[in-house]
Amino acid sequence: MAILIYNCTAVRMDEAGTVLPHAYVLVEGSKIVSVGDQRPQGFTGRQIDGKGNVLLPGLVNCHTHVPMTAMRGYGDGHDLQDWLHHYIFPVEARWDERAIRCCTALGLAEMIATGTTCIADMYMFTDAVAQEVVSAGLSANLSCGGVLFDPVFDPKTCHDCVAQEALAQRWHGYGDGQIRFDASIHAEYTSRSELWKWTADFAKANGLGMHVHISETRKEHAECIQRHGKTPVQTLDRYGVWDVRGIAAHCVYTTAEDWAILAAKGVSAVHNPCSNLKLGSGIAPVPAMKAAGVNVCLGTDGVSSNNNHDMFEEMKLAAILHNGAACDPLALGSWDALRMATVNGAAALGRKTGRIEPGYDADLILVDFSHLNLFPCHDPVSNLVYAAHGGDVCMNMARGRVIYKDGDFLTIDLEQVKREVANYAVPLLFGTK
Amino acid sequence: MAILIYNCTAVRMDEAGTVLPHAYVLVEGSKIVSVGDQRPQGFTGRQIDGKGNVLLPGLVNCHTHVPMTAMRGYGDGHDLQDWLHHYIFPVEARWDERAIRCCTALGLAEMIATGTTCIADMYMFTDAVAQEVVSAGLSANLSCGGVLFDPVFDPKTCHDCVAQEALAQRWHGYGDGQIRFDASIHAEYTSRSELWKWTADFAKANGLGMHVHISETRKEHAECIQRHGKTPVQTLDRYGVWDVRGIAAHCVYTTAEDWAILAAKGVSAVHNPCSNLKLGSGIAPVPAMKAAGVNVCLGTDGVSSNNNHDMFEEMKLAAILHNGAACDPLALGSWDALRMATVNGAAALGRKTGRIEPGYDADLILVDFSHLNLFPCHDPVSNLVYAAHGGDVCMNMARGRVIYKDGDFLTIDLEQVKREVANYAVPLLFGTK
Repeated sequence: MAILIYNCTAVRMDEAGTVLPHAYVLVEGSKIVSVGDQRPQGFTGRQIDGKGNVLLPGLVNCHTHVPMTAMRGYGDGHDLQDWLHHYIFPVEARWDERAIRCCTALGLAEMIATGTTCIADMYMFTDAVAQEVVSAGLSANLSCGGVLFDPVFDPKTCHDCVAQEALAQRWHGYGDGQIRFDASIHAEYTSRSELWKWTADFAKANGLGMHVHISETRKEHAECIQRHGKTPVQTLDRYGVWDVRGIAAHCVYTTAEDWAILAAKGVSAVHNPCSNLKLGSGIAPVPAMKAAGVNVCLGTDGVSSNNNHDMFEEMKLAAILHNGAACDPLALGSWDALRMATVNGAAALGRKTGRIEPGYDADLILVDFSHLNLFPCHDPVSNLVYAAHGGDVCMNMARGRVIYKDGDFLTIDLEQVKREVANYAVPLLFGTK
Repeated sequence: MAILIYNCTAVRMDEAGTVLPHAYVLVEGSKIVSVGDQRPQGFTGRQIDGKGNVLLPGLVNCHTHVPMTAMRGYGDGHDLQDWLHHYIFPVEARWDERAIRCCTALGLAEMIATGTTCIADMYMFTDAVAQEVVSAGLSANLSCGGVLFDPVFDPKTCHDCVAQEALAQRWHGYGDGQIRFDASIHAEYTSRSELWKWTADFAKANGLGMHVHISETRKEHAECIQRHGKTPVQTLDRYGVWDVRGIAAHCVYTTAEDWAILAAKGVSAVHNPCSNLKLGSGIAPVPAMKAAGVNVCLGTDGVSSNNNHDMFEEMKLAAILHNGAACDPLALGSWDALRMATVNGAAALGRKTGRIEPGYDADLILVDFSHLNLFPCHDPVSNLVYAAHGGDVCMNMARGRVIYKDGDFLTIDLEQVKREVANYAVPLLFGTK
């Protein structure tokens, strides 16, 4: 079915930085087919009036753990180790598939309502997560974060290897690319070289990307250097982990040598400013990574360390944090942040999204510029990045399908999901059941 | 008229940190008269059902320049001096009273919709600002930021002295305390000791508070030390500026000696994290000021350096920024941020607001916890600070009067204000008229 979005200002996110007033964007199937300032002749299909709105590519959340939406605000106010060991891990031990399903749907609904159309998720119960993503309608690169604590490693019996092989088989490329399966290593400190080598080879052999937590905390970074004589980026590089399209989440303590590797190998750094600040991890060197040629994108991380899925918040924080940290008002700006959340995210995930261009996925959102916090408007991109929040999104189209409009979810039965979270998942996870 | 708010969870902001489920809060006139978990016997007045909502004291924005709402996003992406001299100052030279009125009303509407009930504003055309505040219904400490560039100082002819005397006469205590007039010095670097001495004496003689920009940038702080041999806090202290209840905005570069003065004299530091980050000013030493006994509160600053008036954003940023800057997940937490935005702000402004207690101003907001970003809720305060944004506010009661409910403004004709801003103020200010 064709859909015409008209009467809006389109921030195209092309190389030229085009902001097109009175835009007409035509979508057919899952793709954008034309963009212009004239009504396509003879068009008779469905139309969406974007009056007073700004049209933007859907936002790309490059690092998250969606089911953790169940744990929003649980155990915060404790230090990281206490939080993980006494709050998060005991809850995570109680997951079942039914709980994962509703908590994933809840997190996806929040993402959809705040303008995200594409995510990179790393968690457990990946089949259930994939099914919920397919049903919700957005696009996802899914991974399950391989760990290796067992002293013996045999890929034929290693649970994470077996699981990744089966998941790649079932999900990679599913739904005309709606789902991609990324190989993954949870982190250097939760695995060993045998798994790194295996995962690198597995990704290469199957044309998969790679998703790894990298240098999130000073401790983790320093201990890796103690163990291996090199930083996490460099340690994993020895085993070919970065020989495929990769996403390195956090990169707070990465070095100039690390950035050279990431840039040379086309590995993207995912900046998660809310999570890194809240957990006291630190401030990632985003302007320096950018200057070194690293593709830097954005993520919310799980909401238990954020505590929401609002990519507009991440954009604003990314745009202002580094100015303050460096005492340089020009360290990063609104366009940098918007690129991180769109085109850079698309590149990180190997997807043709993040731009309003013919041939790109029809991942499009409308932002309601009649809202008070977006008025007056001297510069739409400034307002989007510094003044907007996710609640200003009034339409979300993912892969050509309108999945959210004016508060209504068209692919998720939200009341049913909330009941299931309240009556099943929360009691199960928090031991009150 | 009496109003009963019931069926909500009240975060009382008392010393004990009480979170009262199933609260009944009774308001008469402009005051809270009772708080409890039982319906007041025989009550027959107006009732507000807070079902699914959290009741919170209205937020206190302790440093702002409301009319600058007109300049949202204007000239950002330029360095501070360029921004001020080529964008902000030329616009500010074009203000007239009519433009100030509608731009003030616009900014107040945004504040009201995002849960603010009380502000400390510093700007020009203070009579017009005061009239708009009175009409909108919230409470304000207003000031007009005295400057002294003239080589000759005579308080009888100095424009800012004459203006402050007249404004204090007209506005201090107006509307049973709805308006307070604060004496003010714009900043050390825009004035001289004659004005400091005069303003300090003027404040003392008239029982006024004091509002000053302090050590916002490294340059300003260092140049004051060069000029006077002391920091701005210490320099002004010599002239008695801190001998009254005072609010020191920014305090980014203040020192341990400064904090000792602020703490001893009961002067409050206003943290403006969004503005300080965006302009590249730096990160104020909030945990250290707090540890030194300084009352730290929160402000948005003008939206031209923010770029919105959402105090929920300031709370979240205050709660997470210092953890990341210090690599300490416990540097500040959700309760710290919520206190900064309520009780601490009330103390800073010398007002009996910021708590849900009998005898306090009936400044109360309801936050809709049925919103997706606030579900599930393991801890209301965590969700308020880390997951909410201003758009989650569904009711604003200021001084006992409901001024906003479910998207409707009851004291501001928003469409008329927006038309006036678009058709009169913006063309006037930005030279297109």
